[in-house]
Amino acid sequence: MTEKPLQEHVLPFGRTCYGCGSENPRGLRLQSFREGEEIVATWQPQPHHVSGPGVISGGGLATLMDCHTCAAATEAGYRAEGRAMGEPPLLTYVTASLHVNYLRPTPLAGPLTLRAHVTAMEGRRVVVACTLWAEGEETANAEAVYVRVGNAPAGR
Amino acid sequence: MTEKPLQEHVLPFGRTCYGCGSENPRGLRLQSFREGEEIVATWQPQPHHVSGPGVISGGGLATLMDCHTCAAATEAGYRAEGRAMGEPPLLTYVTASLHVNYLRPTPLAGPLTLRAHVTAMEGRRVVVACTLWAEGEETANAEAVYVRVGNAPAGR
Repeated sequence: MTEKPLQEHVLPFGRTCYGCGSENPRGLRLQSFREGEEIVATWQPQPHHVSGPGVISGGGLATLMDCHTCAAATEAGYRAEGRAMGEPPLLTYVTASLHVNYLRPTPLAGPLTLRAHVTAMEGRRVVVACTLWAEGEETANAEAVYVRVGNAPAGR
Repeated sequence: MTEKPLQEHVLPFGRTCYGCGSENPRGLRLQSFREGEEIVATWQPQPHHVSGPGVISGGGLATLMDCHTCAAATEAGYRAEGRAMGEPPLLTYVTASLHVNYLRPTPLAGPLTLRAHVTAMEGRRVVVACTLWAEGEETANAEAVYVRVGNAPAGR
């Protein structure tokens, strides 16, 4: 496991983003880490993330999977260049598509675990697969496609 | 346009849900209405919904499209039965899949407009197409598949 979340290496996005910004007081503040061959996150839902009674919002899950797969794509982009995560010039990826399959209701009680890995890299395009787990069961999964949009100036 | 948002007809979900609950103080509080042959919503992003600078979070957009297409599926389910929206017993639909295409960055300044319509209904399954607009341009679209999971008890 890396010392700090992947998001903290790509500033300012990693501090401000609604899904994963560490300093967004009204965001979901997801934190993703490399663990072996995977990118992993554990996340605790709050009561306001509810959909139906006792079940977490599918949109909230999509938000987590979007930010988690973006972290995985970005980390893979740096590794492919033999550079440390976040090293200037920053690599920036945007989501081209996100396809979420909801397999069963995801309990609001949490905690949730997200596991992602890159399945394809081709030019500026990175494809990431993600599974989402609660109480030992896979409750949702996703495939996300990212496109590198060039180098952004380094953050603070 | 109906008198009150579609979500307000399906209680308690329409009051509590993270994406569209009218009484969720930390949710997105989307409100969807029937307008002619479409289900339409207008939504104003807040600063904390940011992703990159000046751009709204893709996960936030997925959340809006999830709740908006769910409202469209539910409304279609009631119409197919010749019943008024929200009439007990409540029809409940859950998202089976959500596929979002991000066509270009969606400005955080807003407002955003969502337009949805049902493209297929077969047994318990409803497919909904949704487009998302900002400053006169389509910036994202989605296809969502819903499954009716039976009748829920009527809310307050």
